Amino acid sequence: MHHAESRTDIHLLQPGWLKDWLGRPAPTDDRGRLEEVLALAGTNIIRAGGGPFAAAVYDLDSGRRLSMAVNTVVSNQCAAAHAELQALSLAQQVIGNHTLAGKSCVLVSSSAPCTMCLGAIAWSGVQALVFSSTRQDVEKIGFDEGPKTPSWRRELEKRGIAVLGPLLRRQGQQVLTLYQEQGGVIYNGPETPHH
Amino acid sequence: MHHAESRTDIHLLQPGWLKDWLGRPAPTDDRGRLEEVLALAGTNIIRAGGGPFAAAVYDLDSGRRLSMAVNTVVSNQCAAAHAELQALSLAQQVIGNHTLAGKSCVLVSSSAPCTMCLGAIAWSGVQALVFSSTRQDVEKIGFDEGPKTPSWRRELEKRGIAVLGPLLRRQGQQVLTLYQEQGGVIYNGPETPHH
Repeated sequence: MHHAESRTDIHLLQPGWLKDWLGRPAPTDDRGRLEEVLALAGTNIIRAGGGPFAAAVYDLDSGRRLSMAVNTVVSNQCAAAHAELQALSLAQQVIGNHTLAGKSCVLVSSSAPCTMCLGAIAWSGVQALVFSSTRQDVEKIGFDEGPKTPSWRRELEKRGIAVLGPLLRRQGQQVLTLYQEQGGVIYNGPETPHH
Repeated sequence: MHHAESRTDIHLLQPGWLKDWLGRPAPTDDRGRLEEVLALAGTNIIRAGGGPFAAAVYDLDSGRRLSMAVNTVVSNQCAAAHAELQALSLAQQVIGNHTLAGKSCVLVSSSAPCTMCLGAIAWSGVQALVFSSTRQDVEKIGFDEGPKTPSWRRELEKRGIAVLGPLLRRQGQQVLTLYQEQGGVIYNGPETPHH
């Protein structure tokens, strides 16, 4: 066990098998990118028992995939370890800058953002967001999306971030249903707060 | 430079001098805790050139200070490296659980939360929030607090999180003014988005 008084760094680890995914060629359109992210979310349920969420950042100028991430709240003992927040943070660390502004980066996410990730997207400098399942889909299986402003899409667009979604919604819903069928933990549900 | 395809972990480092602060006895009331956090925010400006924000988590049952954190957005090349999000994540990793629920923990922060940290607080399992300066104070020096719902206090209270603030607001404002006087970077200002 770590001694509380000496803990001054946060280390968030993605599962080891994610490296295989990062070695594959990056898809070249929104649909292909979202399919890859949804497949990753499904794999996180099956292989890691993690939350049914995945995200990735692509640089449209270079065609490079900058980062991929899955939800690791439980494995990393960190409530903030959502897929989107980590995909954005990894992309920033890859380019060596706290902002993705000035590039042409898109965040592709299996679900619409929760309140926290909405803020993380606003601060990230990303140029676009593409997502599959909606707040209603996510809340239907028990997760709480938080105190998010109803005008969140407009708020992102005001900040120069284009929002596209729900796209491939049925596939996104299937990933959420899979999690439910597997008896996945609803670690922040409204009925059992914060678990 | 790191190779994009191999980056799967996020490492957020607090400044080395924070260890000295963590060795001090924990204050025993809200005012003392907030004074310590405001002093820490001021120190982050002077010693590290970091954002004028600090936060800490205290366990009221044991009297222990579980974590302290300063804003490290620029030094860690990570837009999400806000003080509150890191203080909560460090506290969770210290107790070895993704949630602080079931304890009596308070998050003490130099400022009211931005949109992202509002979400992080909702997911953290913390029981109370104490803050000093307000959204208006923070926006006055150029920062954008994001698309936060106006009913954010009520939303936290609905989730069982007590909210106390602004407390010691004048001291909180002085920290923000100090940052402005030192020519601190407004890394997510609305005028120069995401810089």
